[in-house]
Amino acid sequence: MNSKPTLFTCLSPSLLHLYEVSKSIVVVIDVLRATSTIATALYNGARCVIPVDSVSRCITLGKQIDGITAGERDGKIAEGLQYGNSSFEYPKEFIDNKTLVLTTTNGTRLLHMALEKGAGEIITGSFPNLSAVCDHLVEKNMPVILGCAAWKDRINIEDTLFAGAVISRIKDHFSINCDASHIAETMYTEAKDDMFEFMKTNNASHYHRLMNFGLEDDIRYCLTPDSANILPEYIEGKLVVQS
Amino acid sequence: MNSKPTLFTCLSPSLLHLYEVSKSIVVVIDVLRATSTIATALYNGARCVIPVDSVSRCITLGKQIDGITAGERDGKIAEGLQYGNSSFEYPKEFIDNKTLVLTTTNGTRLLHMALEKGAGEIITGSFPNLSAVCDHLVEKNMPVILGCAAWKDRINIEDTLFAGAVISRIKDHFSINCDASHIAETMYTEAKDDMFEFMKTNNASHYHRLMNFGLEDDIRYCLTPDSANILPEYIEGKLVVQS
Repeated sequence: MNSKPTLFTCLSPSLLHLYEVSKSIVVVIDVLRATSTIATALYNGARCVIPVDSVSRCITLGKQIDGITAGERDGKIAEGLQYGNSSFEYPKEFIDNKTLVLTTTNGTRLLHMALEKGAGEIITGSFPNLSAVCDHLVEKNMPVILGCAAWKDRINIEDTLFAGAVISRIKDHFSINCDASHIAETMYTEAKDDMFEFMKTNNASHYHRLMNFGLEDDIRYCLTPDSANILPEYIEGKLVVQS
Repeated sequence: MNSKPTLFTCLSPSLLHLYEVSKSIVVVIDVLRATSTIATALYNGARCVIPVDSVSRCITLGKQIDGITAGERDGKIAEGLQYGNSSFEYPKEFIDNKTLVLTTTNGTRLLHMALEKGAGEIITGSFPNLSAVCDHLVEKNMPVILGCAAWKDRINIEDTLFAGAVISRIKDHFSINCDASHIAETMYTEAKDDMFEFMKTNNASHYHRLMNFGLEDDIRYCLTPDSANILPEYIEGKLVVQS
């Protein structure tokens, strides 16, 4: 008898309908850079992070709750917002005890989709909080969907790599009948010794996009495990640290 | 100036809307086993293969045109049809000069989707006709979408591997800004020395499904390049050999 919970990897929000979201923990993965920045801001003491799907909503909410507004469009701080998407903008001395209202496109959209489909629990995952995610999933012993935010629904390498990293660590605790998961794990196994170099060699579209904005340090940070090792959980509209 | 045509890999029919189908050659890929069997039947002299999406349509059409009807459901010849999905059922002495009406679920559905979206050209790809596909794509010098039929929209390993095989051969002729293509190529590079073993080791869902039906020889055949090296093109409702 196999009593292990299932684990599936959903490589694009356009595939989310294939999975039983309502019974599962959904891990929202947006490695470059939303979920990495979320983990970092919370690790550095932010009271909470509120993900919103548009610049105008970010501005409005920021005013209403006196929060820090942040988000980029085409590699620049969006007009009307205060800060960008880089983890480096949110050190402890700045973000501690503040509320961050963050607008991102792909990650926020997937999070809201998971919410609408009645996910059992929604957490965010990124390399900076890899171990916290893995520990939590093993401990909860519930069905898991690793949800890659992708890029405008197109599968991307970095979110796939993070899914693979999680799988390589926790697969013994789950029943995995899912080719996408095996693909993700194979990719991670290939890449793990130098993920930055792997992204470069494989012409990852995000690698080029962010390098063109001069963000090599950002990419390297977002591929480094456990530098902001907390667990963000989405509760009543906010991402907060779950202990 | 980059004058090479684009190449994209669509890992599931649910992602087809992301690509500009109308300007492209769409390669329908259903390695286990529809497109392998289509290549084989045509290679062995079938006048044409007509893909249909249901058993009842297969029966009706088979009677109307006096064709061979074929298709499986749950690993057995579907009720009312004459033959199954195995390439081994269609040797030259049987299929030569006959018309095969084949019902498959995933491959036929993707083909019809590509047709509805106005694909510039639709061909089918499988390892048995790998070289013919590659040669054709290079020669045509048009935008390409490698369309994996997947399994009920879930990404599968074997169709991804075939996409990767094509990419590894023809990438120098195309502009590839598509992470899914790089994922497919990485998978193929990992698997190519022994794809059967790779499918087994990685717990490919179709591997297990077909092995449970006693179809190891079928799997091995479907992973062998160029044993039925013709080019099936979909023209006016029929797959015919394109020379």
